[in-house]
Amino acid sequence: MENEQEQDKDLGGPALSSTTTWSIYRYNGTEVLPQEDTIATEAPLTIKVDGEEFATLVYTPTDTVDLVTGFLASEGLIRFVDQIESLTLEEQRGFAHVKLRHLHQLSRTMVSKRFIGSCCGKSRQFYFHNDARTAKTVRTNLQLSVEQCFHLMNRLQEQSSDFRATGGLHNAALCTADELLLSRSDIGRHNALDKIFGHLLRQRIPVRDKVIAFSGRVSSEVTLKAAKIGVGVLLSKSAPTDLALQLACDLGITVVGFIRRDQLTVYTHPQRILECR
Amino acid sequence: MENEQEQDKDLGGPALSSTTTWSIYRYNGTEVLPQEDTIATEAPLTIKVDGEEFATLVYTPTDTVDLVTGFLASEGLIRFVDQIESLTLEEQRGFAHVKLRHLHQLSRTMVSKRFIGSCCGKSRQFYFHNDARTAKTVRTNLQLSVEQCFHLMNRLQEQSSDFRATGGLHNAALCTADELLLSRSDIGRHNALDKIFGHLLRQRIPVRDKVIAFSGRVSSEVTLKAAKIGVGVLLSKSAPTDLALQLACDLGITVVGFIRRDQLTVYTHPQRILECR
Repeated sequence: MENEQEQDKDLGGPALSSTTTWSIYRYNGTEVLPQEDTIATEAPLTIKVDGEEFATLVYTPTDTVDLVTGFLASEGLIRFVDQIESLTLEEQRGFAHVKLRHLHQLSRTMVSKRFIGSCCGKSRQFYFHNDARTAKTVRTNLQLSVEQCFHLMNRLQEQSSDFRATGGLHNAALCTADELLLSRSDIGRHNALDKIFGHLLRQRIPVRDKVIAFSGRVSSEVTLKAAKIGVGVLLSKSAPTDLALQLACDLGITVVGFIRRDQLTVYTHPQRILECR
Repeated sequence: MENEQEQDKDLGGPALSSTTTWSIYRYNGTEVLPQEDTIATEAPLTIKVDGEEFATLVYTPTDTVDLVTGFLASEGLIRFVDQIESLTLEEQRGFAHVKLRHLHQLSRTMVSKRFIGSCCGKSRQFYFHNDARTAKTVRTNLQLSVEQCFHLMNRLQEQSSDFRATGGLHNAALCTADELLLSRSDIGRHNALDKIFGHLLRQRIPVRDKVIAFSGRVSSEVTLKAAKIGVGVLLSKSAPTDLALQLACDLGITVVGFIRRDQLTVYTHPQRILECR
């Protein structure tokens, strides 16, 4: 980092990397081949301000001092960098310890309220306790062919008329192996999934043999949401993060990503994709 | 909505729409023309549980009962829909009032903590009080040509090697009218902007004559972040929401979106784009 401030320390050992590798199966239009793939890293970072937990973000572990400084400024705790007395990173453990000078009263109230303000931010405590209670390992005998994956993703894109009009929406659909049952749109990726979750609960639709097709990127929170909903297969047009894939491994979810034209990548639990067996 | 539950009521008058229209300037490769465009709606929704504010989301105002039900289930407050005693919407005012049956002790603790768990979610209180304090109207005499917009967006895409490798990252860059000064990547849209904000603060770089180029969609929070950083021009490859554009109008930010190949759209404050004058 250029012109590092004197007070910034990193206690965390080797820096984390912004990418990592993952063993995948790639369908290239004619056959499925095992390969190594490069995946974006996703790491949690809990920001403690004057000893109190302020927020936990998930992020790409680069420029961490800048991120913490910018986040504190965005959230209104500081306006100038001099208001930071010290900033100490423990990146491997996922902590940033901040001491502020002259934290005025309103900001003090905000720290004590521990608002989570960033996209994809969650309290670590919340993340672990609550998710452990609601995200269960998915067990299903459902199997799909590569052709069925393409068909469902194509149907999702055909459904989304508002997206075509505005370009600004994420789409998610609940599917059987063969057809879309319902699709929902939202400016927020998580909201589109929550709209499906709510519909399932309200209509008491069983999910064990279902698939979710999704237009957005697969972050840890998307995988967790799929596990909470209880589906075993998640199809996406986009890329996953490493934390999302680790969770998908643990929670028994098959993640198929980069479904575009006649290509796709199977990242986890390939036993549910017929051609990978 | 299919098979509406008896207890669901909507006190909110006419339903909100998922899209709206906006007067824009579109550059079609040869000339700039004023047009009407269709924009995704973005609305705030504060979910109150047993009278206490639980969370505020921004969302596309469709399937609101499903969204609230799914959000409560995702956050672990309910497992079955019967645990909802009543759910009353005031969509125009932006409220959902939920009464739960048998809210057990852990969930009760969570309500009282008022965690914000969804992507792009913010407490309304936080949103207004804190943002009003930190997001100031941007005043700058900076002007760009359409060519400069294309050049900066092209440079942003060339910079992002991790994105090309993983497909999973958002990119943001701080620019003059002519060149990229620094670019940052993150799995989280807001994090990429906070990394830039932090760098600016730490290096004491003046922002008044700067531009932000951004790979992601322009939501209300992205516009607010640009105003907090203090830049007057926001360039994006993607689409904006209506709330983002309303805020950009109020805060003096020029939003240029859908910058792709030789086309772009100017949504707000066109006086800063030379060809729109």
